[in-house]
Amino acid sequence: MRGKFISIEGGEGAGKSTVIAAIVQALGQHGLEVVQTREPGGTPAGEAIRTLLLDPARTLAAETELLLMFAARAQLVRELILPALARGAVVVSDRFTDASFAYQGGGRGIEMGRIAELERWAAGIKPDLTFLLDVGVDEGLARARSRGGELDRIERERSDFFERVRATYLSRAAAEPGRFRVIDASQPASAVVAAVTRALSEWRTRA
Amino acid sequence: MRGKFISIEGGEGAGKSTVIAAIVQALGQHGLEVVQTREPGGTPAGEAIRTLLLDPARTLAAETELLLMFAARAQLVRELILPALARGAVVVSDRFTDASFAYQGGGRGIEMGRIAELERWAAGIKPDLTFLLDVGVDEGLARARSRGGELDRIERERSDFFERVRATYLSRAAAEPGRFRVIDASQPASAVVAAVTRALSEWRTRA
Repeated sequence: MRGKFISIEGGEGAGKSTVIAAIVQALGQHGLEVVQTREPGGTPAGEAIRTLLLDPARTLAAETELLLMFAARAQLVRELILPALARGAVVVSDRFTDASFAYQGGGRGIEMGRIAELERWAAGIKPDLTFLLDVGVDEGLARARSRGGELDRIERERSDFFERVRATYLSRAAAEPGRFRVIDASQPASAVVAAVTRALSEWRTRA
Repeated sequence: MRGKFISIEGGEGAGKSTVIAAIVQALGQHGLEVVQTREPGGTPAGEAIRTLLLDPARTLAAETELLLMFAARAQLVRELILPALARGAVVVSDRFTDASFAYQGGGRGIEMGRIAELERWAAGIKPDLTFLLDVGVDEGLARARSRGGELDRIERERSDFFERVRATYLSRAAAEPGRFRVIDASQPASAVVAAVTRALSEWRTRA
């Protein structure tokens, strides 16, 4: 039996890590094999690409950024996701291709058709279920910055960049309501986790 | 006046370095600004991608390899080649997009249409002149291996891989005779250099 592929999307400070931990725990309680991964990254090559992508000292053209994201994704799909799905595991990924549409498409202005073309052959798969953790840009950025630590290359973008990212995410969710669950991530963490685990449980009984 | 873009292509052990040095010297004697670069690489991000691509310990899917090649190329075009051409320089590159058709298309079997699509938007330019240094696979590999040093990830491929690379290069040269000059690189280095500088000189008087 083929497994399931769940992605978690959202802007800076949306609380993805907390939600992912809750999803992994909930699925694990049902005796499922759960494989947790992240983008960009998740494989040795992908993590090396991640370092390159997030280094604040790097100069990268928008096209370079997009191609690096898909290079890491192509490797992740083939080395980790497809084998895990083939043995029936549930794969939970911190971001997937929707993030390229949001960040490199909406944020950087790369034509969506180019991203869709890469999605078809370089990724080749879509998540079965995607949680979009939605929070206002100012609130998300304030949370991300309060975490401390150095901001990465993409986190250093301006507010209007993140507004375009958010708008793209919301428009993708509206276009694919069967796959997306939009969660109001401005709520307290406990309420966000409760909403996600409820939606996950409903989805599992239907899937 | 827009400058000119010259690429040098060829398999392992074809003698690209010697030829490039001769081209750079010949052009420099005419008082031209010559910008020498290489693929993958040529920019800080590109050289980091090169390290990843050539590391013999790395596992990379064919699609990952192709996307990394184009990520490095997208950066090289925007950061180095286009600015140099805009100020009228001659850019001399050790490999360009033809190498992706030969290695990732011919060698790895990725569909040529996908590579052509990436060529259009990620590279966006073609060389004005391309030297293909052609040598038999066995002879080229013997030369490359006699250089000593560790073989990189791609140099470790089998002979049939390099036969497909060579066949693809020759077929591309046949399809674009106006851009390509095929040089018999099985000749002694001095004869190869003489053939290249003669072809370069003829091209310059016509260009």
